[in-house]
Amino acid sequence: MSENIFPSWPDSAPQLIDVAAGRAPADTVIRQGIWVNVHTREQLPGHDIAIKAGRIAYVGPDASYCTGPETQIIEANGRYMVPGLCDAHMHIESGMLTPAEFARAVIPHGTTSMFTDPHEIANVLGLDGVRYMHDEALMQPVNIFTQMPSCAPSAPGLETTGYEISAKDVEEAMNWPGIIGLGEMMNFPGVANADPKMLAEIAATQRAGKTVGGHYASPDLGPDFAAYVAGGPADDHEGTCEADAIARVRQGMRSMMRLGSAWYDVESQITAVTEKGLDPRNFILCTDDCHSGTLVNDGHMNRVVRHAIACGCDPVVALQMATINTATHFGLEREIGSITPGRRADVILTSSLTDLPIEVVVARGQIVAESGSIRVECPHYDWPASARGTVHLGHELAAKDFELAAPEGANAVTANVIGVVENQAPNKALRAELPVVDGLVEGSGDVCQIALVERHRATGGVTNAFVSGFGYQGKMAMASTVAHDSHHMIVVGTDREQMALAANRLAEAGGGITLFKDGEELALVELPIAGLMSDSPATEVAAKAQKMVEAMQACGCNLNNAYMQHSLLALVVIPELRISDLGLVDVRTFQKIPVIEPAQ
Amino acid sequence: MSENIFPSWPDSAPQLIDVAAGRAPADTVIRQGIWVNVHTREQLPGHDIAIKAGRIAYVGPDASYCTGPETQIIEANGRYMVPGLCDAHMHIESGMLTPAEFARAVIPHGTTSMFTDPHEIANVLGLDGVRYMHDEALMQPVNIFTQMPSCAPSAPGLETTGYEISAKDVEEAMNWPGIIGLGEMMNFPGVANADPKMLAEIAATQRAGKTVGGHYASPDLGPDFAAYVAGGPADDHEGTCEADAIARVRQGMRSMMRLGSAWYDVESQITAVTEKGLDPRNFILCTDDCHSGTLVNDGHMNRVVRHAIACGCDPVVALQMATINTATHFGLEREIGSITPGRRADVILTSSLTDLPIEVVVARGQIVAESGSIRVECPHYDWPASARGTVHLGHELAAKDFELAAPEGANAVTANVIGVVENQAPNKALRAELPVVDGLVEGSGDVCQIALVERHRATGGVTNAFVSGFGYQGKMAMASTVAHDSHHMIVVGTDREQMALAANRLAEAGGGITLFKDGEELALVELPIAGLMSDSPATEVAAKAQKMVEAMQACGCNLNNAYMQHSLLALVVIPELRISDLGLVDVRTFQKIPVIEPAQ
Repeated sequence: MSENIFPSWPDSAPQLIDVAAGRAPADTVIRQGIWVNVHTREQLPGHDIAIKAGRIAYVGPDASYCTGPETQIIEANGRYMVPGLCDAHMHIESGMLTPAEFARAVIPHGTTSMFTDPHEIANVLGLDGVRYMHDEALMQPVNIFTQMPSCAPSAPGLETTGYEISAKDVEEAMNWPGIIGLGEMMNFPGVANADPKMLAEIAATQRAGKTVGGHYASPDLGPDFAAYVAGGPADDHEGTCEADAIARVRQGMRSMMRLGSAWYDVESQITAVTEKGLDPRNFILCTDDCHSGTLVNDGHMNRVVRHAIACGCDPVVALQMATINTATHFGLEREIGSITPGRRADVILTSSLTDLPIEVVVARGQIVAESGSIRVECPHYDWPASARGTVHLGHELAAKDFELAAPEGANAVTANVIGVVENQAPNKALRAELPVVDGLVEGSGDVCQIALVERHRATGGVTNAFVSGFGYQGKMAMASTVAHDSHHMIVVGTDREQMALAANRLAEAGGGITLFKDGEELALVELPIAGLMSDSPATEVAAKAQKMVEAMQACGCNLNNAYMQHSLLALVVIPELRISDLGLVDVRTFQKIPVIEPAQ
Repeated sequence: MSENIFPSWPDSAPQLIDVAAGRAPADTVIRQGIWVNVHTREQLPGHDIAIKAGRIAYVGPDASYCTGPETQIIEANGRYMVPGLCDAHMHIESGMLTPAEFARAVIPHGTTSMFTDPHEIANVLGLDGVRYMHDEALMQPVNIFTQMPSCAPSAPGLETTGYEISAKDVEEAMNWPGIIGLGEMMNFPGVANADPKMLAEIAATQRAGKTVGGHYASPDLGPDFAAYVAGGPADDHEGTCEADAIARVRQGMRSMMRLGSAWYDVESQITAVTEKGLDPRNFILCTDDCHSGTLVNDGHMNRVVRHAIACGCDPVVALQMATINTATHFGLEREIGSITPGRRADVILTSSLTDLPIEVVVARGQIVAESGSIRVECPHYDWPASARGTVHLGHELAAKDFELAAPEGANAVTANVIGVVENQAPNKALRAELPVVDGLVEGSGDVCQIALVERHRATGGVTNAFVSGFGYQGKMAMASTVAHDSHHMIVVGTDREQMALAANRLAEAGGGITLFKDGEELALVELPIAGLMSDSPATEVAAKAQKMVEAMQACGCNLNNAYMQHSLLALVVIPELRISDLGLVDVRTFQKIPVIEPAQ
């Protein structure tokens, strides 16, 4: 893939020097804007930027001495010249888009650098999947750095993923050109317990001189936190309150504050800077997870920066948190994150630092977006058949695959039921009395069936259980191959025929999300790449996702964005009750429990 | 030399985690001090530091849970706990001390990390000399990182050094364990002109992921400066005024502000932060050059930090400039520069952040100094004979070697004379009428003789010329093998017999500084290592240097610290007139000029 690597500063230094010295003309000059200097924290009117070979050659009051007849002129006309925005931690798969389509969606919002952890695809396709993502990332006209996933599976022993990531995989990936560090180390109890595999992954990353991403998802700031910090993660994006942010920075980590589609952790933490007055250099903004709808309707890192400013942060400080702070964190401060000589020429023109309208986006010296429209190709990787055909059911499913036999002679049973909670990732472990009809346990009221359909190894395995809270009525079923983190298939339904229809439909489509009602498919989001991503434009995916929301409403589900709850029902690291290919898991105790309680 | 490498964080992570989790006792606990947090810029009373395997395992309110019966307790008793100080750019040779003795001199002042460019020895012994310095550096109980010299010789074509450093040497050295980057790129016209050798050195450093040191010694902030910045140097310590500092930081370089024995560049630049309010993260303190007398009498980086505070800088900001800012610059922020888990346990205890008395110094978890006294060994490298016997004169010199023949029949001549200026590195190109006696040109008044004695290749070469301004009287001569940057031997005297005595004496002593008057040696500073350094303690060297000052005064020289002027008379890159083994050099034009002007 070396042909996709952007030439380095030393590769281009002779050209940059010649332009800066006035011996050669620049390729492009951005003329007379307000230079937003994230090194000094200044706004400096009346500056020009000269660009050569995709890098900045000169920034100063007058670039006319290095402007030639062939030089492209971009008139800033007194607008602000802001470094391209960086998303410090994110998962491209969360947008249900390939890297190319994700890039195409966010470039018009001014994002020119992303640090993405493809741990969803790692569960489906292993190291090969990570490599495909990495390779497509390197093909883009903006900078997409890959964080090597650290934790696939998320919960060893409680689920069977398509593939697992080993410490040896991590060591190997550290030599790939686009790998910037280790993805979020989610196994924080493992680190605190000095788990050898986790420490080997961290060590391989540190020895490669790269950055270890953290994920400490606990409010406990006692010895467990101290032990996690001592283990080496260099940042954390799981803080939710001011005390979390302060504790992380005091301990020498960087606090990544996120505003994703469903994460709102900036307002509650940025007071560490805006009110407590801490040195802002170790605070960074990121999104973590953005749905395509957010990208289409609300923005990306520009949305996060605007929000930080609305929370009272000084605009240039907020921009530092999305540019130079991020670059410094990943050892890239001489490559990206500021408008200074030698760096990649990633520049936004905007007429307001508070509203931050993204009027022109320049990446590597090229205009990549204007007035919200993309102006550049985002090339697609030639995804192999193995990445497109990842839904392996073993055989066509039928209604009987979703049957739950009752104990001999029982007329009713007590079942352990997953209780969905609106707007929350955690759920509830409930119990319900369910009727038995013809020897089979049936849903009742708001309790309907859920099935985890094995789809990686074609075992034909189906784990059946019960879920409540969606409000589904009539004969329906919804199925998804996005099923964190193992990404088998989750089918939820009121009717076993519909469940079989939905599951088989996703096998045929190669993955995605579907909803059947009375034998008709009401909505479909095709996600042919690994069953996780579409290589269609974000606008199309967002429109289909919106139709899915409407289809769920038509079946009686009025929860906000309940697809998120659906896709998280197999996430066996978040309490209280989840389903995996191995059975029903009580995440409070990390034990499997039966669906049907034994009779007393 | 791998046995001298301090174990890495991942090497020690299991132990650090166990201590932080409370499963194992710390080696050492520093109890109840005010944690000076350079990440958040806070002072946090009531904190403990737990140390294991030389690294910090835990910082928090109470380390009793990781304290065992064998744990060494250091009572902070409410004092400030400050990270060990870092000198971001310096030359150990300037102290006329070996790395070991330099370390021994500065550890009691709280310096625990140094970034040293051994470019003096590079001129005498080439890459081997750099390696000896590098290896002795790695043997020390504190952190001495080596910057690979970039410019030996400093002025190709105008002098012959003992050895030259090539781009290949730089590439090789980047693999040595203690090399942190490239030493100051002094050939700034070369960079601005895209000189292939200079760019190759920079490229080798950047490709190794290391830091390129800068040296832009010109007030011109126009295209030459822009071209230099575009070439890649990441810092600069040659700024002398606020505008210099601001220009460098705006352009994405770090401004290193120095307070050496003879450099006073902090007060004039730190106003960029204290008055202009620039983000201080890119400002760094350093010494560049400190004589042994300064180290013995005034301090080292503690002197610089105190001075910065006296200049109005907030104490914690000043400390950031000597700790975390430096660490971040060199990509070491997870290794040194703050008191946080995983980092080397380099901690100073002090009862005042403004006076900064250095009461206890801990380096890598060990008490290395208390109340100004060293408490640790600083091991000496076994310097080879080739490094000790570096004064090769070819033959014993006699008075006639210092004769300057006048043109046939002349009774007087017009000579080009080097004019020394007190307290300045630059000098003046003067002219003087000098008498001719027995066919030889003689000094007159304050004009005396100067000779550059070749000492690297035993050519027997002596370049004779004239110098004025020292005020020497009577029959005397002073000689030094510290003779920047080529480090031949400079002899200045009023009498050719004394000049021969002095030169031969240094050949016998293996290098150093001597002063003869009326046939007697009044003072001698032996510098047996490369003719540049002593492996005796700093106190002894400083005492001998003080005797040398007194001997100069006894000969009529009342200039302040005129030894510095003496040792710089061969520095053919600083205007106006210098002497080299190739002749008299006018540094305004970079041309050789005759000593005796041709008769009109």
